[in-house]
Amino acid sequence: MARAIARGQGGPGRLSSALDYAVNPGGARIRPTILLSVAAACGDDRPALSDAAAAAIELIHCASLVHDDLPAFDDADRRRGKPSVHRAYSEPLAVLAGDSLIVLAFEVIAAAGAEDPLRACALTLHLAQRTGMPGGICAGQGWESEGEIDLSAYHRAKTGALFMAATQMGAIAAGQDPDPWEELGARIGAAFQVADDLRDAICSAEELGKPVRQDETHGRPNAVATYGLTGAVRHLDDILSGAIASIPSCPGEAALAQMVRAYADRIVPAGARRTVPGE
Amino acid sequence: MARAIARGQGGPGRLSSALDYAVNPGGARIRPTILLSVAAACGDDRPALSDAAAAAIELIHCASLVHDDLPAFDDADRRRGKPSVHRAYSEPLAVLAGDSLIVLAFEVIAAAGAEDPLRACALTLHLAQRTGMPGGICAGQGWESEGEIDLSAYHRAKTGALFMAATQMGAIAAGQDPDPWEELGARIGAAFQVADDLRDAICSAEELGKPVRQDETHGRPNAVATYGLTGAVRHLDDILSGAIASIPSCPGEAALAQMVRAYADRIVPAGARRTVPGE
Repeated sequence: MARAIARGQGGPGRLSSALDYAVNPGGARIRPTILLSVAAACGDDRPALSDAAAAAIELIHCASLVHDDLPAFDDADRRRGKPSVHRAYSEPLAVLAGDSLIVLAFEVIAAAGAEDPLRACALTLHLAQRTGMPGGICAGQGWESEGEIDLSAYHRAKTGALFMAATQMGAIAAGQDPDPWEELGARIGAAFQVADDLRDAICSAEELGKPVRQDETHGRPNAVATYGLTGAVRHLDDILSGAIASIPSCPGEAALAQMVRAYADRIVPAGARRTVPGE
Repeated sequence: MARAIARGQGGPGRLSSALDYAVNPGGARIRPTILLSVAAACGDDRPALSDAAAAAIELIHCASLVHDDLPAFDDADRRRGKPSVHRAYSEPLAVLAGDSLIVLAFEVIAAAGAEDPLRACALTLHLAQRTGMPGGICAGQGWESEGEIDLSAYHRAKTGALFMAATQMGAIAAGQDPDPWEELGARIGAAFQVADDLRDAICSAEELGKPVRQDETHGRPNAVATYGLTGAVRHLDDILSGAIASIPSCPGEAALAQMVRAYADRIVPAGARRTVPGE
């Protein structure tokens, strides 16, 4: 990531600084961690390429946060415990920072592509499909401008897309067929969505470093409203069990299952488990 | 282009419609025309790849227009003779349309990459460098947020970058070294900038299909203010003579020189030549 961002240094100073601000310090870096875990499970014979793919997916995620926080969308004042990019810099610089991070993501993969251009092209194609229209995170955000939302397409695109990209790009970087890895990504994404709904419903803004009760405020559908708090935690556990069961047969299968279990423990907010009787 | 945009169909309907609206009907399609002319001059042995590169560069250009028109930047109500994307759709959809078009540009190249993945990677890398930070069109726009503008870096990035991309990506698509093609792109870009300044200064909003006197309104430096109207036209002619002289030796050199001459006749607004004594 540091090397990736260093590519964007130079040029206009404030935009350059805004790029760094948008990416560092990061959040949990979940998507690149998943990508590298899958690549490792598949043998990871092109580590420079899987590293580039991991940086690229996090850059796209960071870009999406910067644009989602804009006044035209969530109008969020804070992100990751500090002012959002448009608050800290300006709205023009936030738009440009998001644009530049999207571009940088593709640049990073292409720059690492000499080692294996065919895999680099496949990574670029996959990342683009999971980022843009009609099925990527741009599409996910776009569903919020529709009169009638296709809920399943909305969640699959808005949150699921980059998790599916994470598992499938991990496989591609290591030279494996990405298709069997889609379900794992989709399930981790669905679990993350439920966990996010739980955090939004029960955590404080101080704990999260960003505004809470956003689903309620913006009238967005969420798992806590649908299943209740207890039901949502059980639903999340079911999804993660399914995720582990879906891991394709590969050399690092056991380690990967362990990673998903650790992830499950981490994403469920402590307060949520305490409210579930018998746990 | 039509095929490229068709990839973005499906998904949320309004965003899908906004993508089509942002790209069709187009402007002069100058950048892809230059790219394909250079590719042809270099032999164009991978026409599917040069076609994809041409579509990609125009998609990036369209994306930049959509974002530049946003209220945070030029706040332009009209573009290409119709309401700008954020006026016709909404600000969120204009942000997302720009994002999706950037992504689609890279997707289009990657999708055509199977034929020659090494060239596809080189095209992706070059397009990214000419689009993002620190030297691409995002950087160009970013200079406008600086207290002190590096004028040469500003023009080179804001207008020149995609013209340099056009000539150099034309060469890359045809398997040639892009370096000798940079000057031609830089000069065409500089000429375009002067012509744009002339149009902004002497044409009406009806003729251009977008607001005029924007340089004056936003206090931006421009060639007419620096050289006067007569001097700006002569400056433009000098730049284009230099452009023709810079064309590297290649099979289609003569045809390319002819294309640049035709381009020169087209971009100088009629009213500007009429004001120059003796012409």
